[in-house]
Parts: sequence; C-alpha cells; structure tokens
Amino acid sequence: MAYTAEIIGVGTELLLGNTVNTDAQDVSLLLSELGVNVYFHTVVGDNPTRLKQAVEIAKSRSDIIITTGGLGPTFDDLTKQALAESFGKKLVFNEAVAQQIKDFFSKRLPAVKMTENNLQQAQLPEGCVIFDNGVGTAPGCAFEAEGKHVLMLPGPPRECRAMLKACVEPYLRKLSDAEIHSHNIHIFGLGESAVEQKLRNLMENLHNPTLAPYAKDGDVTLRMTAKAASKDEAEKLMTPVMSQVCETLGDIIYGIDTISLENTTVGLLLERGITLAAAESCTGGLFSKRLTDVPGSSRAFAGGIVAYSKNAKISLLDVPPELIAEKNAVSREVALAMADGARIKLGADIGIGITGIAGPGSDSSGLEPGTVFVALTTKDSSYCRSPLLFHDRERIRIVGSSHAFDMTRRLLTGLSVD
Amino acid sequence: MAYTAEIIGVGTELLLGNTVNTDAQDVSLLLSELGVNVYFHTVVGDNPTRLKQAVEIAKSRSDIIITTGGLGPTFDDLTKQALAESFGKKLVFNEAVAQQIKDFFSKRLPAVKMTENNLQQAQLPEGCVIFDNGVGTAPGCAFEAEGKHVLMLPGPPRECRAMLKACVEPYLRKLSDAEIHSHNIHIFGLGESAVEQKLRNLMENLHNPTLAPYAKDGDVTLRMTAKAASKDEAEKLMTPVMSQVCETLGDIIYGIDTISLENTTVGLLLERGITLAAAESCTGGLFSKRLTDVPGSSRAFAGGIVAYSKNAKISLLDVPPELIAEKNAVSREVALAMADGARIKLGADIGIGITGIAGPGSDSSGLEPGTVFVALTTKDSSYCRSPLLFHDRERIRIVGSSHAFDMTRRLLTGLSVD
Repeated sequence: MAYTAEIIGVGTELLLGNTVNTDAQDVSLLLSELGVNVYFHTVVGDNPTRLKQAVEIAKSRSDIIITTGGLGPTFDDLTKQALAESFGKKLVFNEAVAQQIKDFFSKRLPAVKMTENNLQQAQLPEGCVIFDNGVGTAPGCAFEAEGKHVLMLPGPPRECRAMLKACVEPYLRKLSDAEIHSHNIHIFGLGESAVEQKLRNLMENLHNPTLAPYAKDGDVTLRMTAKAASKDEAEKLMTPVMSQVCETLGDIIYGIDTISLENTTVGLLLERGITLAAAESCTGGLFSKRLTDVPGSSRAFAGGIVAYSKNAKISLLDVPPELIAEKNAVSREVALAMADGARIKLGADIGIGITGIAGPGSDSSGLEPGTVFVALTTKDSSYCRSPLLFHDRERIRIVGSSHAFDMTRRLLTGLSVD
Repeated sequence: MAYTAEIIGVGTELLLGNTVNTDAQDVSLLLSELGVNVYFHTVVGDNPTRLKQAVEIAKSRSDIIITTGGLGPTFDDLTKQALAESFGKKLVFNEAVAQQIKDFFSKRLPAVKMTENNLQQAQLPEGCVIFDNGVGTAPGCAFEAEGKHVLMLPGPPRECRAMLKACVEPYLRKLSDAEIHSHNIHIFGLGESAVEQKLRNLMENLHNPTLAPYAKDGDVTLRMTAKAASKDEAEKLMTPVMSQVCETLGDIIYGIDTISLENTTVGLLLERGITLAAAESCTGGLFSKRLTDVPGSSRAFAGGIVAYSKNAKISLLDVPPELIAEKNAVSREVALAMADGARIKLGADIGIGITGIAGPGSDSSGLEPGTVFVALTTKDSSYCRSPLLFHDRERIRIVGSSHAFDMTRRLLTGLSVD
C-alpha cells in the first residue's frame, strides 16, 4: 500500500505573498519520486492555534506529515512545540545538538555572537530521529506516533533541500518496499490538448505505469511513472508504453529525461562540433540568454547580435535597407537575411534570425502582435517558420525562441526543419 | 471587520512538484494589499472528492475562498463542478462566453482547430459574475453563497495575474467600506536586512500605514499600506512616512510604484533621447532581454552584442587580444573595452560591458563564480563596478545585469555611478 503524505508550510511570510512556497515543490518532487502520494499542501502562518488546527486535519487524512519552516530561534518559531503537543510528546533539551549549535557559531560565524534563543533549537521531541542541518543551525527531526510519521524540516530553501537529500530520502526509502521510477518525455511542436487527444485511449487505460501531461510555455512534458518491486521491473513495465508513446508522437519528442529544449540543442551542437550565431529582433536577447543558460555553451556559440531597431539590422547584420523597405522589417526575407548576416559576420555554421511583433502594440505596417518569423540558414540551406503566436509579449518571445532551438535540433538530427 | 480568506490551488502538477505555486503568492500579495487576512493556502490535486473535502474545510473557516487552476478544457479540469456542487449551484451553459471562445480561436488562432472540449469552459455556475480572461480562453467567475464569497481563477500564472488586476481587485474592493491603498518603494543597492536595520525604529512604531520589506534578486521593495475612509485620507496618512523613508534611504530608491529597474532606466533614456548599446559576456543576452522587455525600448536601444567567447569579444567588439591576454577576459579593463566597443560600433551615447564568471565552475584563470565586472562608458567618462555576488548562476546573471541598469539610471540622474 502506498503512503499518503501532506506537506505543511509554516510561515506568515508565505501567506503575505512575500515568498513563494518552493519547499513544497522540493518535498513533493522527492515524494513523487519515492512513490508517496502527496494529496495536500497546506500553508499556515506563525500562529499556534491555526497550526494545530492544520495538524489535526492532516492527521485525519494522511500517513506522513512533513512540515517546513518554523524551526528557527525566534519567538514566532513554533512548529516543534505545536507538533509535539498535537502528538502528546514532550520537548527535551538535547545536549549534543546544543553543542553542535555552539560549534557552528564559534567555527563558522566567529563574528556573530550566539544568542541564548539559538539554544531553543536544541529542544526536540522526545525519542525523535534528529536530521542534521549541514547548512544552517536548525536541526530537523522525525518521530512516529499514533500510526503517523511526522517529519519537520527547516524553512530556508537551501537548508530544506540539503536535508531532503541527506536525511529525508533515506528515512522514507526505509518505509517502503516498492520502488518507484519515472521518465519525462519532452515534446515541442504540439499543444497539451492535442498531445492528450493523441494519447487519450492509451492514458485512460493505463494504471501502472501512469502517464500525465503538463505544459509550460509551448513545451509539453509527459511524465511516466511505474511502481514495482525493483528498478528493473519498473523499467520493464515502462518499456512497451514508452515505445507506444514514441511511435504515436514521433519526432516532436525532443528528449527523454532531458533538462530543456536549449540543453538538448546545445548538446547536439557540442557533440557535432557545430557553431551557431544568432540575430535577434523581437526576442531581444532571449534566445542568446537561453542558449547561454546551458553551462559549457560557449564552445558552440559564436555570438549573438540583438538588432532590435532597423538601423541595427542594417549596420550590424548587413541586411540591405531596400529589403527592409520593400518587404518590411518583420518578414520572411528579413529573418533570412538576419540569419545570414549573423552567420557570416561571426563565421558560424548555423545562423538564426528572429524578427516579429512581440506586442503589446502592432507595428507601423499594421502586423498583429504574435507575427513572428524564425529563420535558420547554413551555407547550403535556409529555412523559415512563421508560427502564429497568440499570447502576451513575454510568451511570444519565449515560444519564438523555442522555435529557433527546435529548428536547430531538427536540422542536426536530419529531420524536416520547417 | 476584516475578511479572512483561503486560497485553494487545484492541480496535480503542484502536488507532484512539477510547478511551484506562484498563483498563491500573487493572490496573497493582492489580498494583503487589500487588507484581507489570508490564514491558509491549500493545494489539492485534480480529484473531485479531495477537492470537495478541501472546499468544506475552507467553508468552515474562511469568509472568502479563492481557487486557482482547474478551469481548462481537459477532462481533469474540475474546479467549477466541485465548487458549484459544494454550494448547491447548477452549471449553466453561457452562450456569450461560448461565442467569445469561438471568436478567440477563429480570430486569434486561425490555424488551430477548436475542439469541442474548449466549449466546456462556457459552463458556469448559475448567477455568477464572469471574469473575462484577457490572456487565454478560460474565464474566471465569482459567486456569493452561504455567506461566503467564492472566486475561481485560471491556473496559468499570466492569466491568473491579469485577472487579479482586472477583475478580482475591483470585485474585492467593493466588499469593504474602508479603502486600502499602498505604495511600493523600490530599492537597488542595499540588502533586505540592511534596509530593515535602517528603518527598524520607524517600522516598529508604525501601525497605519504599515511598512514591510521584501527582496527578490537583489531588488528590495518596501510596501507601505494605509487604511482609511477614503483614498485621500489614506494618502494623507502615508505622506509623512514616505518623506521619512525617502530621507533615510536617499538615492538607492530607484522608483516609487514603478514596474522594474529596467522600466525606470528605459524611461529615463527615452525621456532624455539618449541611446544605449550593450556588450555582454557572462549575462549572455539577459541585459538586452530585460531592456527589450520594456515596450517602446527600441528607440533607446542601439543594439546588443553577446560576445560570450574570447573570439567574439575580439571580432565583434574590437577588444584588443593583447588586453585579454594580459588582463584576462574577466577584468575591469576588458569590461571597459567591451562597453567602448559596443558604444562605438553601434554609435550609441552609452556603452555597457559585462564580463564575469556565472559558474557553476571557475574559469581557467581560477577566478571564482560570482566575480563580475560591469562597465559603463560614454565618450567623456567611464565607470566600472565589481560587485561580489555569492549566488547561483541564474542569480549572478540577474544581479549582474541589474547593476548595469542601476549605473545607467544613476548616470542619467546625475548621481555617482560606481
């Protein structure tokens, strides 16, 4: 039987909107990897009554309760007290933990004077397992009571993340005898509903593995998850379904378990020793920014030119002024000329040219926002896509630059480009 | 009496950790601006039973229930059904909304075939107020029942944010007879704790207005909020406090109620008819991208050159190879030469040059990640900052480019630049 879990984030700053609850995401990612079903997230402020209320509700519906936050040294850090009370446990002063906290200050923060309230962090529920905090002073802890597992983690994302990996994962793996494994199938070139439509029959009849799509900025990811007694068996369950998905979707799948479209594309460029140069108008540097998000990309990237204005297109990219006058700055012809300009000026194998109207307004020629031309040229060939993007400015720029990555990927893997 | 609210995020992708719940943050920010007390966030999956459970709990403890997500066209989008059932309301097919959805597809996405399930989005709770979705197809809605206010918003963050501003804010303002007004004071150049320390005495003694700082990527925003019978009275309460804050913090305040540092900077460039050109290495296009995030920026932006590699710095920006050999590609001298190169090549008034180590690894010269040089030159003057940024790759790039905006802003307003 699979465990169910609930994550309780404690902190008024979350309810005020000052911070976003990345801890819930980090804990959820680990739990879903471990096959624990997370059914609820709750966020509650630094208020003992409402925190205990939330714990009572969690007790009634979840096997595992994981709290994040409220373990710090200040008077409004109440998580341990509240959880201990809810489960009828005492807090006990732990000498070893107190010593660790003292050492942390004297060795790592010699300039900072430890205040007495820091030692409050050495008060821990009786009989708990202590989770060392490798990054900060507040230790986490776990106990079992009333048939529930309670785990308490620090709120600062860095501390929470480190403790998840070092302490929580081994703790939870011991609870289960099933192994859960998953694969992410990454798609560009088809929307979420269209992907779902193509796979509906398959998805509705699947139980193990399961298959779930999610979409972000033009990318669609399908997550396949299987549960079995061993990793091998989980993989065995997934193999035939993976084949079916790959057969159904074909070459719009750009990767399996990859980080992003730009990572896949940069990987291909590096593998083949091919360089790329980019000329950007409406994306204004976003394509170059995304490309250079990938560590190591410098060997594949000859450089980028952001030619946002007409003059810059002429002076930086040698786009003929009469071409702009005749065809318009936002046109297939100018996108191709920009790609060639970047490629030739920078001595690269592949040139990318992106021009369009990101909005919010139309341009002087009356073209609507979302009109985008994405060109790719090499010394022997040239391609241009003109996807119609009805979105806001930000998303037009993201999806526009994704098309350039996708065209490059397709060129490098021998697929049709436009 | 102040209303209490609970935000229910609906979506299995949140429980799986595939996405982070930014909607809860956005809704919380608005509610705290309006003086509504948010006591709980809940996240629940695309599961009707558990969603109804969560709604029952929310009903028992909150005056206002705001859901985000689950309004889409696919079979697992169940929010409207669940909320309508919980409050004993029927769903009614709304012809006008159906027509809007059809128009959306025929006008804006002529290449995309609308599927029948898109019309499911025209099913709305009887007697509800409809919130138009300016950005996507799923309308939001609100109704009052059993003494509670229920508001349903779409999950995609951009759609949710647009609807919060256009529909939810006016809807909620009508519920209260007190007026809540606020100002955001934007700061660059001092950390959150340092800002708090400078204002501690003031902040601790304030009740109306209140003053709260929050930080993001090197920017600090102070939010001042006042509650009064009218807008004028609220402003009257804020004026003396605003003066005190401005006097205490001085010229590190880059704007009040502005959108972003780049918006302020582009505004100044446009106002003064001054053009800027950028040469970027470690930021890889992010500075240009942020600059061109601002609509209308093309008149101020002569162009950008992303010279990520050594060769590109030489060929695109005329940086002397011997300068790179002698001083290192990451150095004050090369940053200044890059700024000059961009400025002169592009015929701009101001040149920006950014070079540094964004990490994760060190460079061949052994410089640590976070070493960044940001240069600004004009034909008469040159400046260089070298902030030490202890962060990850993404944040080093963001804060590095922010320094370039800040230097430009300070130059244009006659303040010391480095």
